[in-house]
Amino acid sequence: MTVAIIGIGLIGGSLAITLKENGFAGHIIGIDASQENLDKAIRRRLIDEDMPLDEGVKAAELIILATPVDAMLTLLPQVLDLVEDQVVIDVGSTKAELLNTVDMHPKRGQYVATHPMAGTEFSGPEAAIPNLFDHKCAVLIDADRSAPDAVKTVQKMYESIPMTIVELDREAHDLHSAYVSHISHISSFALALTVLEKERDEGRIFELASGGFSSTVRLAKSSPNMWIPIFRQNRDHVLDVLDEHINQLARFRSLLIKKDFDTFYQLIAQANDIKRILR
Amino acid sequence: MTVAIIGIGLIGGSLAITLKENGFAGHIIGIDASQENLDKAIRRRLIDEDMPLDEGVKAAELIILATPVDAMLTLLPQVLDLVEDQVVIDVGSTKAELLNTVDMHPKRGQYVATHPMAGTEFSGPEAAIPNLFDHKCAVLIDADRSAPDAVKTVQKMYESIPMTIVELDREAHDLHSAYVSHISHISSFALALTVLEKERDEGRIFELASGGFSSTVRLAKSSPNMWIPIFRQNRDHVLDVLDEHINQLARFRSLLIKKDFDTFYQLIAQANDIKRILR
Repeated sequence: MTVAIIGIGLIGGSLAITLKENGFAGHIIGIDASQENLDKAIRRRLIDEDMPLDEGVKAAELIILATPVDAMLTLLPQVLDLVEDQVVIDVGSTKAELLNTVDMHPKRGQYVATHPMAGTEFSGPEAAIPNLFDHKCAVLIDADRSAPDAVKTVQKMYESIPMTIVELDREAHDLHSAYVSHISHISSFALALTVLEKERDEGRIFELASGGFSSTVRLAKSSPNMWIPIFRQNRDHVLDVLDEHINQLARFRSLLIKKDFDTFYQLIAQANDIKRILR
Repeated sequence: MTVAIIGIGLIGGSLAITLKENGFAGHIIGIDASQENLDKAIRRRLIDEDMPLDEGVKAAELIILATPVDAMLTLLPQVLDLVEDQVVIDVGSTKAELLNTVDMHPKRGQYVATHPMAGTEFSGPEAAIPNLFDHKCAVLIDADRSAPDAVKTVQKMYESIPMTIVELDREAHDLHSAYVSHISHISSFALALTVLEKERDEGRIFELASGGFSSTVRLAKSSPNMWIPIFRQNRDHVLDVLDEHINQLARFRSLLIKKDFDTFYQLIAQANDIKRILR
Protein backbone atom coordinates (compact mmCIF):
# COMPACT_ATOMS: atom_id res chain seq x y z
CA MET A 1 0.00 0.00 0.00
CA THR A 2 1.17 3.55 -0.76
CA VAL A 3 0.99 5.71 2.36
CA ALA A 4 1.35 9.50 2.50
CA ILE A 5 2.36 10.98 5.85
CA ILE A 6 1.74 14.69 6.41
CA GLY A 7 4.10 15.94 9.13
CA ILE A 8 7.30 13.90 9.40
CA GLY A 9 8.13 14.44 13.06
CA LEU A 10 8.35 12.16 16.11
CA ILE A 11 4.97 10.48 15.47
CA GLY A 12 4.82 10.60 11.65
CA GLY A 13 8.46 9.53 11.34
CA SER A 14 8.13 6.69 13.85
CA LEU A 15 5.01 5.41 12.09
CA ALA A 16 6.92 5.57 8.79
CA ILE A 17 9.69 3.36 10.19
CA THR A 18 7.26 0.82 11.63
CA LEU A 19 4.84 0.55 8.68
CA LYS A 20 7.67 0.17 6.17
CA GLU A 21 9.47 -2.36 8.35
CA ASN A 22 6.46 -4.60 8.87
CA GLY A 23 5.43 -4.42 5.21
CA PHE A 24 2.09 -2.65 5.70
CA ALA A 25 3.40 0.23 3.58
CA GLY A 26 5.18 -0.59 0.33
CA HIS A 27 5.92 3.05 -0.49
CA ILE A 28 5.93 6.09 1.79
CA ILE A 29 5.42 9.64 0.56
CA GLY A 30 6.44 12.45 2.92
CA ILE A 31 4.60 15.78 2.98
CA ASP A 32 5.76 18.58 5.29
CA ALA A 33 5.59 22.38 5.47
CA SER A 34 9.34 22.35 6.14
CA GLN A 35 11.62 21.33 3.26
CA GLU A 36 14.40 20.94 5.86
CA ASN A 37 12.34 18.26 7.64
CA LEU A 38 11.69 16.50 4.35
CA ASP A 39 15.41 16.53 3.49
CA LYS A 40 16.25 15.08 6.90
CA ALA A 41 13.53 12.45 6.49
CA ILE A 42 14.98 11.41 3.12
CA ARG A 43 18.52 11.26 4.54
CA ARG A 44 17.29 9.16 7.48
CA ARG A 45 15.35 6.98 4.97
CA LEU A 46 12.11 7.57 6.88
CA ILE A 47 10.31 8.23 3.58
CA ASP A 48 10.80 7.04 0.00
CA GLU A 49 10.11 10.43 -1.59
CA ASP A 50 8.61 13.81 -0.79
CA MET A 51 5.77 15.52 -2.66
CA PRO A 52 3.65 18.66 -2.43
CA LEU A 53 0.30 18.15 -0.65
CA ASP A 54 -1.98 17.81 -3.71
CA GLU A 55 0.27 15.38 -5.51
CA GLY A 56 1.01 13.28 -2.42
CA VAL A 57 -2.66 12.92 -1.49
CA LYS A 58 -3.54 11.87 -5.08
CA ALA A 59 -0.72 9.31 -5.24
CA ALA A 60 -1.54 7.59 -1.92
CA GLU A 61 -4.12 5.02 -0.85
CA LEU A 62 -3.86 5.97 2.84
CA ILE A 63 -3.13 9.49 4.08
CA ILE A 64 -1.94 10.03 7.66
CA LEU A 65 -2.08 13.50 9.26
CA ALA A 66 0.64 13.78 11.89
CA THR A 67 1.08 17.55 12.32
CA PRO A 68 0.51 19.59 15.51
CA VAL A 69 -3.25 19.68 16.22
CA ASP A 70 -3.71 23.34 15.28
CA ALA A 71 -2.48 22.77 11.73
CA MET A 72 -4.88 19.83 11.40
CA LEU A 73 -7.92 22.09 11.70
CA THR A 74 -7.21 23.56 8.25
CA LEU A 75 -5.36 20.58 6.76
CA LEU A 76 -8.00 17.92 7.33
CA PRO A 77 -10.83 19.63 5.34
CA GLN A 78 -8.26 20.51 2.66
CA VAL A 79 -7.20 16.85 2.35
CA LEU A 80 -10.80 15.62 2.35
CA ASP A 81 -11.53 18.06 -0.51
CA LEU A 82 -8.75 16.35 -2.50
CA VAL A 83 -9.52 12.67 -1.95
CA GLU A 84 -11.59 10.38 -4.15
CA ASP A 85 -11.71 6.92 -2.56
CA GLN A 86 -8.60 7.11 -0.35
CA VAL A 87 -8.70 6.63 3.42
CA VAL A 88 -7.60 9.55 5.62
CA ILE A 89 -6.63 9.36 9.30
CA ASP A 90 -5.16 11.74 11.84
CA VAL A 91 -3.03 10.76 14.84
CA GLY A 92 -3.51 13.90 16.97
CA SER A 93 -3.94 14.18 20.75
CA THR A 94 -7.28 16.07 20.79
CA LYS A 95 -10.44 15.30 18.87
CA ALA A 96 -13.59 17.31 19.67
CA GLU A 97 -12.67 20.49 17.80
CA LEU A 98 -11.18 18.63 14.82
CA LEU A 99 -14.20 16.37 14.42
CA ASN A 100 -16.59 19.31 14.70
CA THR A 101 -14.90 20.93 11.69
CA VAL A 102 -15.54 17.95 9.36
CA ASP A 103 -18.84 16.56 10.68
CA MET A 104 -20.66 17.78 7.54
CA HIS A 105 -17.92 17.15 4.99
CA PRO A 106 -19.15 15.04 2.04
CA LYS A 107 -16.09 12.79 2.39
CA ARG A 108 -16.48 12.39 6.19
CA GLY A 109 -16.95 8.63 5.80
CA GLN A 110 -13.47 8.15 4.37
CA TYR A 111 -11.89 9.77 7.41
CA VAL A 112 -11.13 7.85 10.62
CA ALA A 113 -10.03 9.80 13.73
CA THR A 114 -7.33 7.95 15.69
CA HIS A 115 -4.91 8.50 18.54
CA PRO A 116 -2.02 6.08 18.99
CA MET A 117 -1.13 6.56 22.68
CA ALA A 118 2.66 6.79 22.58
CA GLY A 119 5.30 9.46 22.39
CA THR A 120 8.49 10.83 23.85
CA GLU A 121 9.58 14.28 24.99
CA PHE A 122 11.49 14.85 21.72
CA SER A 123 10.28 16.15 18.36
CA GLY A 124 11.19 16.42 14.69
CA PRO A 125 12.26 13.74 12.19
CA GLU A 126 15.46 13.21 14.20
CA ALA A 127 13.27 12.03 17.12
CA ALA A 128 11.62 9.23 15.09
CA ILE A 129 12.35 5.79 16.56
CA PRO A 130 11.43 2.18 15.79
CA ASN A 131 9.07 0.28 18.12
CA LEU A 132 7.55 3.45 19.64
CA PHE A 133 4.02 2.07 19.26
CA ASP A 134 4.56 -1.64 19.93
CA HIS A 135 1.85 -3.06 22.19
CA LYS A 136 0.53 0.39 23.10
CA CYS A 137 -3.10 1.43 22.77
CA ALA A 138 -4.57 2.99 19.60
CA VAL A 139 -7.89 4.77 20.08
CA LEU A 140 -10.43 5.05 17.24
CA ILE A 141 -12.75 7.99 17.91
CA ASP A 142 -16.39 8.16 16.74
CA ALA A 143 -15.64 5.24 14.44
CA ASP A 144 -19.38 4.81 13.72
CA ARG A 145 -19.18 8.03 11.69
CA SER A 146 -16.64 6.45 9.31
CA ALA A 147 -17.28 3.99 6.48
CA PRO A 148 -16.82 0.35 7.64
CA ASP A 149 -14.20 -0.29 4.93
CA ALA A 150 -12.15 2.73 6.01
CA VAL A 151 -12.29 1.56 9.65
CA LYS A 152 -11.17 -1.92 8.57
CA THR A 153 -8.12 -0.50 6.76
CA VAL A 154 -7.14 1.50 9.84
CA GLN A 155 -7.65 -1.48 12.17
CA LYS A 156 -5.38 -3.55 9.92
CA MET A 157 -2.76 -0.82 10.05
CA TYR A 158 -2.71 -0.63 13.87
CA GLU A 159 -2.90 -4.41 14.24
CA SER A 160 0.14 -4.74 11.95
CA ILE A 161 2.32 -2.88 14.49
CA PRO A 162 0.82 -4.48 16.74
CA MET A 163 -1.29 -2.12 18.84
CA THR A 164 -4.39 -2.78 20.94
CA ILE A 165 -7.45 -0.98 19.55
CA VAL A 166 -9.95 0.81 21.80
CA GLU A 167 -13.01 2.80 20.66
CA LEU A 168 -14.21 6.00 22.35
CA ASP A 169 -16.39 8.96 21.44
CA ARG A 170 -14.76 12.40 21.07
CA GLU A 171 -15.76 13.68 24.51
CA ALA A 172 -14.56 10.57 26.37
CA HIS A 173 -11.31 10.59 24.40
CA ASP A 174 -10.50 14.21 25.19
CA LEU A 175 -11.39 13.78 28.87
CA HIS A 176 -9.34 10.58 29.26
CA SER A 177 -6.38 12.17 27.46
CA ALA A 178 -6.48 15.13 29.85
CA TYR A 179 -6.18 12.69 32.77
CA VAL A 180 -3.55 10.27 31.51
CA SER A 181 -1.43 12.56 29.35
CA HIS A 182 -2.08 16.30 29.34
CA ILE A 183 -1.98 16.82 33.13
CA SER A 184 1.34 14.92 33.36
CA HIS A 185 2.83 17.45 30.98
CA ILE A 186 1.44 20.44 32.89
CA SER A 187 2.78 19.01 36.13
CA SER A 188 6.25 18.45 34.63
CA PHE A 189 6.41 21.94 33.12
CA ALA A 190 5.47 23.43 36.52
CA LEU A 191 8.00 21.31 38.43
CA ALA A 192 10.78 22.26 36.03
CA LEU A 193 9.96 25.97 36.43
CA THR A 194 9.79 25.66 40.23
CA VAL A 195 13.28 24.18 40.43
CA LEU A 196 14.81 26.30 37.63
CA GLU A 197 13.65 29.48 39.37
CA LYS A 198 15.19 28.32 42.65
CA GLU A 199 18.42 27.52 40.86
CA ARG A 200 18.83 31.18 39.89
CA ASP A 201 19.22 32.09 43.58
CA GLU A 202 20.85 28.96 44.91
CA GLY A 203 22.93 27.59 42.04
CA ARG A 204 24.28 24.03 42.04
CA ILE A 205 20.88 22.71 43.05
CA PHE A 206 20.86 20.14 40.25
CA GLU A 207 24.04 18.40 41.35
CA LEU A 208 21.86 16.34 43.66
CA ALA A 209 19.15 15.52 41.15
CA SER A 210 18.84 11.79 40.57
CA GLY A 211 16.47 9.33 38.94
CA GLY A 212 13.31 10.38 40.76
CA PHE A 213 13.61 14.01 39.73
CA SER A 214 14.53 13.07 36.16
CA SER A 215 11.46 10.95 35.71
CA THR A 216 8.97 13.51 37.06
CA VAL A 217 10.38 16.38 34.95
CA ARG A 218 11.30 14.42 31.80
CA LEU A 219 8.18 15.61 29.99
CA ALA A 220 9.16 19.25 30.63
CA LYS A 221 11.49 18.93 27.65
CA SER A 222 8.44 18.65 25.38
CA SER A 223 7.97 21.26 22.66
CA PRO A 224 5.49 24.14 23.13
CA ASN A 225 4.78 23.93 19.37
CA MET A 226 3.13 20.59 19.97
CA TRP A 227 1.61 21.22 23.41
CA ILE A 228 0.14 24.73 23.26
CA PRO A 229 -2.28 23.68 20.45
CA ILE A 230 -3.30 20.66 22.55
CA PHE A 231 -3.92 22.77 25.67
CA ARG A 232 -5.81 25.29 23.56
CA GLN A 233 -8.13 22.68 22.03
CA ASN A 234 -8.61 20.65 25.20
CA ARG A 235 -8.67 23.67 27.52
CA ASP A 236 -11.89 22.86 29.40
CA HIS A 237 -10.94 19.30 30.31
CA VAL A 238 -7.38 20.29 31.13
CA LEU A 239 -8.70 23.02 33.44
CA ASP A 240 -10.96 20.54 35.25
CA VAL A 241 -8.14 18.06 35.81
CA LEU A 242 -5.71 20.82 36.77
CA ASP A 243 -8.20 22.08 39.38
CA GLU A 244 -8.44 18.60 40.87
CA HIS A 245 -4.67 18.21 40.86
CA ILE A 246 -4.20 21.58 42.60
CA ASN A 247 -6.84 20.50 45.15
CA GLN A 248 -4.91 17.31 45.90
CA LEU A 249 -1.72 19.30 46.40
CA ALA A 250 -3.58 21.83 48.57
CA ARG A 251 -4.85 18.94 50.70
CA PHE A 252 -1.26 17.74 51.21
CA ARG A 253 -0.28 21.32 52.05
CA SER A 254 -2.97 21.63 54.69
CA LEU A 255 -2.00 18.27 56.23
CA LEU A 256 1.64 19.42 56.46
CA ILE A 257 0.56 22.70 58.07
CA LYS A 258 -1.60 20.82 60.61
CA LYS A 259 1.13 18.16 61.02
CA ASP A 260 -1.56 15.55 60.38
CA PHE A 261 0.84 12.85 59.24
CA ASP A 262 -1.61 10.02 59.92
CA THR A 263 -4.02 11.22 57.24
CA PHE A 264 -1.06 11.96 54.95
CA TYR A 265 0.10 8.35 55.47
CA GLN A 266 -3.33 7.03 54.47
CA LEU A 267 -3.33 9.13 51.30
CA ILE A 268 0.10 7.86 50.26
CA ALA A 269 -1.07 4.31 50.89
CA GLN A 270 -4.05 5.05 48.61
CA ALA A 271 -1.75 6.53 45.97
CA ASN A 272 0.29 3.30 46.12
CA ASP A 273 -2.73 1.63 44.52
CA ILE A 274 -1.26 2.94 41.24
CA LYS A 275 0.90 -0.24 41.41
CA ARG A 276 -2.20 -2.08 40.23
CA ILE A 277 -2.01 -0.15 36.95
CA LEU A 278 1.69 0.53 36.38
CA ARG A 279 4.03 -2.44 36.45
CA MET B 1 36.89 -4.13 56.25
CA THR B 2 33.96 -5.46 58.29
CA VAL B 3 30.84 -3.39 57.66
CA ALA B 4 27.61 -3.54 59.68
CA ILE B 5 24.48 -2.32 57.91
CA ILE B 6 21.47 -1.42 60.05
CA GLY B 7 18.32 -1.66 57.94
CA ILE B 8 18.65 -4.08 55.02
CA GLY B 9 16.18 -2.53 52.61
CA LEU B 10 16.50 -0.92 49.18
CA ILE B 11 19.40 1.36 50.17
CA GLY B 12 21.16 -0.81 52.78
CA GLY B 13 20.81 -3.91 50.64
CA SER B 14 22.02 -2.21 47.46
CA LEU B 15 25.04 -0.78 49.31
CA ALA B 16 25.75 -4.28 50.64
CA ILE B 17 25.84 -5.71 47.09
CA THR B 18 28.08 -2.93 45.78
CA LEU B 19 30.58 -2.77 48.66
CA LYS B 20 31.01 -6.53 48.73
CA GLU B 21 31.36 -6.73 44.96
CA ASN B 22 34.03 -4.04 44.71
CA GLY B 23 35.99 -5.41 47.65
CA PHE B 24 35.57 -2.43 49.98
CA ALA B 25 33.76 -4.69 52.47
CA GLY B 26 35.29 -8.09 53.24
CA HIS B 27 32.48 -9.10 55.58
CA ILE B 28 28.97 -7.68 55.90
CA ILE B 29 26.90 -7.96 59.07
CA GLY B 30 23.17 -7.30 58.74
CA ILE B 31 21.14 -5.75 61.57
CA ASP B 32 17.40 -5.23 61.22
CA ALA B 33 14.33 -4.92 63.43
CA SER B 34 12.65 -7.52 61.20
CA GLN B 35 13.95 -11.09 61.36
CA GLU B 36 12.04 -11.76 58.14
CA ASN B 37 14.10 -9.07 56.37
CA LEU B 38 17.31 -10.58 57.74
CA ASP B 39 16.31 -14.06 56.55
CA LYS B 40 15.56 -12.70 53.10
CA ALA B 41 18.87 -10.82 53.09
CA ILE B 42 20.74 -14.02 53.95
CA ARG B 43 18.89 -15.99 51.27
CA ARG B 44 19.65 -13.28 48.70
CA ARG B 45 23.31 -13.29 49.93
CA LEU B 46 23.11 -9.55 50.60
CA ILE B 47 24.81 -10.08 53.97
CA ASP B 48 27.25 -12.65 55.34
CA GLU B 49 25.54 -12.98 58.72
CA ASP B 50 23.01 -11.24 60.93
CA MET B 51 23.58 -10.08 64.50
CA PRO B 52 21.74 -8.18 67.24
CA LEU B 53 22.53 -4.45 67.38
CA ASP B 54 25.10 -4.47 70.25
CA GLU B 55 27.06 -7.40 68.88
CA GLY B 56 27.02 -6.17 65.27
CA VAL B 57 28.23 -2.68 66.19
CA LYS B 58 31.09 -4.14 68.29
CA ALA B 59 32.17 -6.56 65.53
CA ALA B 60 32.28 -3.93 62.75
CA GLU B 61 34.78 -1.25 61.77
CA LEU B 62 32.21 0.76 59.81
CA ILE B 63 28.53 0.99 60.75
CA ILE B 64 25.97 2.20 58.20
CA LEU B 65 22.51 3.31 59.33
CA ALA B 66 20.04 2.74 56.50
CA THR B 67 16.66 2.71 58.28
CA PRO B 68 13.74 5.12 57.71
CA VAL B 69 14.73 8.54 59.09
CA ASP B 70 12.40 8.42 62.11
CA ALA B 71 14.08 5.29 63.49
CA MET B 72 17.48 6.96 63.08
CA LEU B 73 16.65 9.60 65.67
CA THR B 74 16.83 6.99 68.43
CA LEU B 75 19.21 4.55 66.73
CA LEU B 76 22.06 6.97 66.01
CA PRO B 77 22.66 8.06 69.66
CA GLN B 78 22.29 4.41 70.71
CA VAL B 79 24.96 3.31 68.21
CA LEU B 80 27.29 6.17 69.18
CA ASP B 81 26.95 5.07 72.82
CA LEU B 82 28.21 1.62 71.78
CA VAL B 83 31.20 2.51 69.59
CA GLU B 84 34.82 2.80 70.59
CA ASP B 85 36.88 3.81 67.56
CA GLN B 86 34.54 2.66 64.78
CA VAL B 87 33.19 4.99 62.13
CA VAL B 88 29.42 5.48 61.93
CA ILE B 89 27.49 6.91 58.97
CA ASP B 90 23.86 7.31 58.06
CA VAL B 91 22.42 7.39 54.54
CA GLY B 92 19.10 9.12 55.28
CA SER B 93 17.26 11.72 53.21
CA THR B 94 16.96 14.46 55.87
CA LYS B 95 19.65 15.82 58.14
CA ALA B 96 18.85 18.85 60.34
CA GLU B 97 16.82 17.04 63.01
CA LEU B 98 19.15 14.04 63.11
CA LEU B 99 22.28 16.16 63.45
CA ASN B 100 20.68 18.29 66.15
CA THR B 101 20.16 15.16 68.28
CA VAL B 102 23.87 14.22 68.30
CA ASP B 103 25.59 17.63 68.17
CA MET B 104 26.77 17.21 71.79
CA HIS B 105 27.45 13.47 71.75
CA PRO B 106 31.01 12.65 72.98
CA LYS B 107 31.49 10.37 69.94
CA ARG B 108 30.18 12.96 67.45
CA GLY B 109 33.57 13.05 65.68
CA GLN B 110 33.30 9.39 64.66
CA TYR B 111 30.00 10.00 62.92
CA VAL B 112 29.74 11.28 59.35
CA ALA B 113 26.34 12.32 57.99
CA THR B 114 25.88 11.28 54.35
CA HIS B 115 23.21 11.08 51.68
CA PRO B 116 23.87 8.99 48.58
CA MET B 117 21.42 10.51 46.06
CA ALA B 118 19.89 7.42 44.47
CA GLY B 119 16.85 5.24 44.95
CA THR B 120 13.89 3.61 43.31
CA GLU B 121 10.18 3.49 44.11
CA PHE B 122 10.55 0.01 45.66
CA SER B 123 11.54 -1.02 49.19
CA GLY B 124 12.70 -3.95 51.30
CA PRO B 125 15.63 -6.36 50.78
CA GLU B 126 13.93 -7.72 47.64
CA ALA B 127 14.31 -4.24 46.10
CA ALA B 128 18.12 -4.19 46.52
CA ILE B 129 19.90 -3.95 43.16
CA PRO B 130 23.52 -3.72 41.93
CA ASN B 131 24.82 -0.47 40.42
CA LEU B 132 22.13 1.69 42.05
CA PHE B 133 24.72 4.26 43.14
CA ASP B 134 27.18 4.18 40.22
CA HIS B 135 28.27 7.68 39.19
CA LYS B 136 25.56 9.32 41.30
CA CYS B 137 26.22 12.05 43.85
CA ALA B 138 27.02 11.35 47.55
CA VAL B 139 26.58 14.33 49.87
CA LEU B 140 28.63 14.66 53.06
CA ILE B 141 26.81 16.96 55.48
CA ASP B 142 28.57 19.17 58.06
CA ALA B 143 31.73 17.14 57.44
CA ASP B 144 33.78 19.69 59.41
CA ARG B 145 32.07 18.37 62.57
CA SER B 146 33.52 14.87 61.96
CA ALA B 147 37.06 13.63 62.61
CA PRO B 148 39.24 13.90 59.46
CA ASP B 149 40.07 10.17 59.60
CA ALA B 150 36.39 9.25 59.76
CA VAL B 151 35.68 11.51 56.77
CA LYS B 152 38.55 9.92 54.86
CA THR B 153 37.13 6.41 55.41
CA VAL B 154 33.73 7.51 54.16
CA GLN B 155 35.21 9.27 51.12
CA LYS B 156 37.09 6.07 50.26
CA MET B 157 33.87 4.10 50.57
CA TYR B 158 31.91 6.35 48.22
CA GLU B 159 34.82 6.66 45.78
CA SER B 160 35.04 2.86 45.62
CA ILE B 161 31.54 2.67 44.09
CA PRO B 162 32.35 5.18 42.38
CA MET B 163 30.25 8.17 43.43
CA THR B 164 30.93 11.91 43.13
CA ILE B 165 31.27 13.57 46.54
CA VAL B 166 29.70 16.94 47.35
CA GLU B 167 29.78 18.75 50.72
CA LEU B 168 26.87 20.77 52.11
CA ASP B 169 25.72 22.02 55.50
CA ARG B 170 22.55 20.55 57.03
CA GLU B 171 20.27 23.44 56.04
CA ALA B 172 21.45 23.56 52.42
CA HIS B 173 21.16 19.77 52.17
CA ASP B 174 17.59 19.65 53.46
CA LEU B 175 16.54 22.57 51.24
CA HIS B 176 18.16 21.11 48.10
CA SER B 177 16.62 17.68 48.81
CA ALA B 178 13.17 19.25 49.09
CA TYR B 179 13.64 20.72 45.59
CA VAL B 180 15.19 17.82 43.71
CA SER B 181 13.61 14.86 45.48
CA HIS B 182 10.84 15.44 48.02
CA ILE B 183 8.59 17.64 45.83
CA SER B 184 8.79 15.11 42.99
CA HIS B 185 7.34 12.52 45.34
CA ILE B 186 4.56 14.83 46.57
CA SER B 187 3.68 15.68 42.98
CA SER B 188 3.54 12.00 41.97
CA PHE B 189 1.40 11.01 44.95
CA ALA B 190 -1.03 13.84 44.11
CA LEU B 191 -1.18 12.94 40.40
CA ALA B 192 -1.85 9.29 41.22
CA LEU B 193 -4.70 10.24 43.58
CA THR B 194 -6.19 12.65 41.01
CA VAL B 195 -6.40 9.96 38.36
CA LEU B 196 -7.33 7.09 40.71
CA GLU B 197 -10.28 9.09 42.05
CA LYS B 198 -11.45 9.81 38.51
CA GLU B 199 -11.16 6.13 37.66
CA ARG B 200 -13.80 5.30 40.29
CA ASP B 201 -16.40 7.22 38.25
CA GLU B 202 -15.13 6.65 34.75
CA GLY B 203 -13.42 3.26 34.80
CA ARG B 204 -11.09 2.08 32.03
CA ILE B 205 -9.26 5.40 32.18
CA PHE B 206 -5.87 3.72 32.46
CA GLU B 207 -6.18 1.78 29.21
CA LEU B 208 -4.83 4.87 27.50
CA ALA B 209 -1.96 5.54 29.92
CA SER B 210 1.41 5.38 28.20
CA GLY B 211 5.02 6.28 28.88
CA GLY B 212 4.50 9.91 29.85
CA PHE B 213 1.96 9.10 32.54
CA SER B 214 4.06 6.20 33.86
CA SER B 215 7.10 8.35 34.33
CA THR B 216 5.35 11.19 36.16
CA VAL B 217 3.53 8.85 38.58
CA ARG B 218 6.23 6.19 39.00
CA LEU B 219 7.29 7.62 42.36
CA ALA B 220 3.71 7.29 43.65
CA LYS B 221 4.50 3.63 44.28
CA SER B 222 6.92 4.69 47.03
CA SER B 223 6.29 3.48 50.58
CA PRO B 224 4.68 5.79 53.16
CA ASN B 225 6.89 4.12 55.79
CA MET B 226 9.90 5.74 54.20
CA TRP B 227 8.32 9.02 53.07
CA ILE B 228 6.13 10.15 55.96
CA PRO B 229 9.18 10.40 58.29
CA ILE B 230 11.00 12.42 55.62
CA PHE B 231 8.07 14.82 55.15
CA ARG B 232 7.75 15.12 58.94
CA GLN B 233 11.42 16.01 59.44
CA ASN B 234 11.72 18.26 56.39
CA ARG B 235 8.23 19.75 56.75
CA ASP B 236 9.21 23.44 56.57
CA HIS B 237 11.28 23.17 53.40
CA VAL B 238 8.78 20.82 51.77
CA LEU B 239 5.99 23.32 52.55
CA ASP B 240 7.98 26.17 50.95
CA VAL B 241 8.65 24.21 47.78
CA LEU B 242 5.07 22.89 47.66
CA ASP B 243 3.77 26.47 47.90
CA GLU B 244 5.95 27.49 44.96
CA HIS B 245 4.85 24.47 42.96
CA ILE B 246 1.17 25.19 43.63
CA ASN B 247 1.81 28.81 42.58
CA GLN B 248 3.29 27.66 39.27
CA LEU B 249 0.26 25.44 38.64
CA ALA B 250 -2.09 28.27 39.64
CA ARG B 251 -0.29 30.51 37.13
CA PHE B 252 -0.92 27.92 34.38
CA ARG B 253 -4.54 27.70 35.53
CA SER B 254 -5.04 31.43 35.27
CA LEU B 255 -3.44 31.53 31.79
CA LEU B 256 -5.81 28.78 30.64
CA ILE B 257 -8.79 30.67 32.07
CA LYS B 258 -7.70 33.87 30.32
CA LYS B 259 -6.78 31.88 27.17
CA ASP B 260 -3.40 33.62 27.27
CA PHE B 261 -1.60 30.96 25.25
CA ASP B 262 1.24 33.30 24.27
CA THR B 263 2.46 33.63 27.85
CA PHE B 264 1.86 29.90 28.39
CA TYR B 265 4.06 29.23 25.33
CA GLN B 266 6.85 31.36 26.81
CA LEU B 267 6.68 29.49 30.13
CA ILE B 268 6.91 26.10 28.42
CA ALA B 269 9.89 27.37 26.41
CA GLN B 270 11.47 28.39 29.75
CA ALA B 271 10.69 24.98 31.27
CA ASN B 272 12.44 23.39 28.26
CA ASP B 273 15.66 24.81 29.73
CA ILE B 274 15.61 21.68 31.92
CA LYS B 275 17.28 20.01 28.89
CA ARG B 276 20.45 21.75 30.01
CA ILE B 277 20.41 19.65 33.20
CA LEU B 278 18.75 16.37 32.22
CA ARG B 279 20.23 14.51 29.27
